[in-house]
Amino acid sequence: MHKPRLLSGMQPTGPIHLGRLEGALRQWVDIQNEGTYEMFCFVADWHSYTTRFKNPEEIAKNARMLVVDYMSVGLDPEKTTIFLQSDVKQHAELHLLFSMITPVGWLERQPTYKDKIATLEQKYSEENVAEYISYGLLGYPVLQAADILVYKAELVPVGKDQAPHLEIAREIARRFNYIYREIFPEPQALIREDTGTLPGIDRRKMSSSYGNAIYIRDTADEVVAKVNQMITTETKLRKTDPGVPENCVVCQLRKIYDPENYQVSWEECRQGLRGCTQNKKELAEILNAMLEPIRRRREELESNPDYVDEVLRKGAEKARAVAEETMREVRAAMCLRP
Amino acid sequence: MHKPRLLSGMQPTGPIHLGRLEGALRQWVDIQNEGTYEMFCFVADWHSYTTRFKNPEEIAKNARMLVVDYMSVGLDPEKTTIFLQSDVKQHAELHLLFSMITPVGWLERQPTYKDKIATLEQKYSEENVAEYISYGLLGYPVLQAADILVYKAELVPVGKDQAPHLEIAREIARRFNYIYREIFPEPQALIREDTGTLPGIDRRKMSSSYGNAIYIRDTADEVVAKVNQMITTETKLRKTDPGVPENCVVCQLRKIYDPENYQVSWEECRQGLRGCTQNKKELAEILNAMLEPIRRRREELESNPDYVDEVLRKGAEKARAVAEETMREVRAAMCLRP
Repeated sequence: MHKPRLLSGMQPTGPIHLGRLEGALRQWVDIQNEGTYEMFCFVADWHSYTTRFKNPEEIAKNARMLVVDYMSVGLDPEKTTIFLQSDVKQHAELHLLFSMITPVGWLERQPTYKDKIATLEQKYSEENVAEYISYGLLGYPVLQAADILVYKAELVPVGKDQAPHLEIAREIARRFNYIYREIFPEPQALIREDTGTLPGIDRRKMSSSYGNAIYIRDTADEVVAKVNQMITTETKLRKTDPGVPENCVVCQLRKIYDPENYQVSWEECRQGLRGCTQNKKELAEILNAMLEPIRRRREELESNPDYVDEVLRKGAEKARAVAEETMREVRAAMCLRP
Repeated sequence: MHKPRLLSGMQPTGPIHLGRLEGALRQWVDIQNEGTYEMFCFVADWHSYTTRFKNPEEIAKNARMLVVDYMSVGLDPEKTTIFLQSDVKQHAELHLLFSMITPVGWLERQPTYKDKIATLEQKYSEENVAEYISYGLLGYPVLQAADILVYKAELVPVGKDQAPHLEIAREIARRFNYIYREIFPEPQALIREDTGTLPGIDRRKMSSSYGNAIYIRDTADEVVAKVNQMITTETKLRKTDPGVPENCVVCQLRKIYDPENYQVSWEECRQGLRGCTQNKKELAEILNAMLEPIRRRREELESNPDYVDEVLRKGAEKARAVAEETMREVRAAMCLRP
C-alpha cells in the first residue's frame, strides 16, 4: 500500500519560538507519529533569497539551525524525510518548467505579493525599493508549487495566510495536467486547527519581529526572565486583587501548556487566592519542563554534527529519488529528453 | 593557456533558412575554425516553451533537427561542444538563483518583452491573451543570462535585436559580483558583421513566418522552383530590357553566393544582354552547389542517429562539467551547500 505523501516546510528565518512550535511543528510531529502519511519535511532555504538575498551567511546558519530544531522537537529522520530544498535541484528544474505555463497575472494578483511589496516600500526609499522587488519574489508561488508537486504531495499543512499560495499550486497542477498529461494530484491544504494565536510577552501575537517571543533555544534562566516580564492583569497589583486570566499572558500560556490543571490556578487568580509571582514561577517551571527534553535532544544533535550531516545527506538522497521519478514523467509529458 | 569561452545558440523554431545560415551559423563555423575560442553551441529548447508550451512535440522534433543542421553546416563536435539546454540542469538552478537578484522592473522594461506581448495581443483575443503571457516569458532574459554565465562565456554572437538581452546578462553578472563575489565575466556581444538582410523570394526579409525562405533542407528541385518564383526587375519583361540588380532578388542572392563573379552577370542584366531565366538557372545551380555538401552531411547524420545521440551525450557531459564547476563557485558565494 502506497501511503499518500505530505509535504511540510518552512523558511529558515531564525530560531523557532513557541508560536511556531504550537502553530506548526507540533502538528507535523503528531502527523508523523500517526504514520498515515509518507512525510517529507524540508527547509526552504532557496525561498529565503526572495527577500534576504543580501544575507546569505544568515540563511545558511538559520537553515542548519532549523534542521536541528526540527529534530529536537520530535521530527524523526527514521520516519520523515528531512532535507534542504537547495540539495534537491529538481525543484529548480520544475520551477523553470512551471514558469512557462504560469500566467504572470496569477502572480501579480497574489495578495501576499502585494503585502510583501507594501512591506518593502515601508522599509526602503522610493529609489531603492525596486532593487528588492525581484523576479523571484514575484515567482515565489511557482517555486512553492514545484516544491509540493515534485513529490506529488497530496497534503500540505499550511497556516490560513498561506492558503492562496497553495491555491496557485493547485491551479498550476490543473493547468499542467490539462496541457500535457495527468501527472499531478491537486494538493489539499491541511489547515491547522486553530490553537488560538499564542500571545507573546507583551500580549501581542508572539513573533520574532516583535521581540516578544520565547524560543525553544532559550535557556531555563532566559525562560524564567521572560516569564517574569509577561504582562498579567494590569489591575492585579497584589495577590488578593482579582485577576482576569483571559487578559493575562501567563494564564493564557498556562492554559496551553497545562491543559488538565490550569483551571484551578485560573480560579485562584480570579478569587485573589494566588498572586502573579506564584503564577509566573509555576509557568516557568511548566515551560522549562516542556523544553527540557527538546534542549537535551538539541545538545546531543549539536555535539554530533556528523550525524546531522548524515541525516541531510540521506534525506536529500531519498527526496531526490522521488523528485527525479516525477521529473522523468514531467519531461516525457513535455517531450523533453529523459 | 585557457582560451576564452564563447557561447552561441538558437531556439529550435524550425528548419534553418539561408537568412539564418548567413546571419548566424556561418559566423559560428568560421569562429570555430579559427580556433581562438573554446566554443559552446547549444539548442535553446527550454526557451521555446516561453511561447510554444502547447506544442512540445514540435519543440522536440525541431531541437533534434537543429542539432543535425548545426553539424551539417560545419559545426564540428570535435571542436565545439554541441548540446541541448535541457540536458544541463545547472541552467535551471542558476536561473532560479538569478531570479532572486534580478529586479522585476528590469524585465518589464525589456523592449523584446513588450514586442512579444504586442504579438500575442494580435494573435489572441483579449480574454485569452493573458494565458500566454507567462512568468517564463517575462523571465526569458534571466534564463538567457544563466545560459551564458554558467559557462562564464566572455563572448556571445548576437543579432542587433538581441543586444538588450545581453545587456541584462551583463547587469545580472555585475549585480551578482557586487552582492556576493567576483565570479562572472561580463559577456561581450559579438555583433554580426552586417551581411545585409538576406531577401526572400518576395523581396521582403527572408523569414519562416513570411513563407519566402529557402531552407538548407530544401531539395535541389525545391531550390530550382523557389528561385524561379523570385521577384526580379518588374520592368524587365524580355531579356533585352534593362534590369536593376539592386531590386532583383536573384541578383542580390548571386552577389552573396558568387561574390567574385557576380559583377559580370549584373552588368549583362543592366545592359539587356542576359535574361532573368538564365540568371535564375545559374543562381539555382550556385545555391545547389553550395547546399550539396550540406545535404550530404545531413543525410549521413540522419542515417546515423546513434552518432547524433552520442554527440549530444558527450556534449551534455562536457557542458555539465563546466557548468557544475561554475555552480560550485556560485553556491559557495551564496553560502549554499556544495
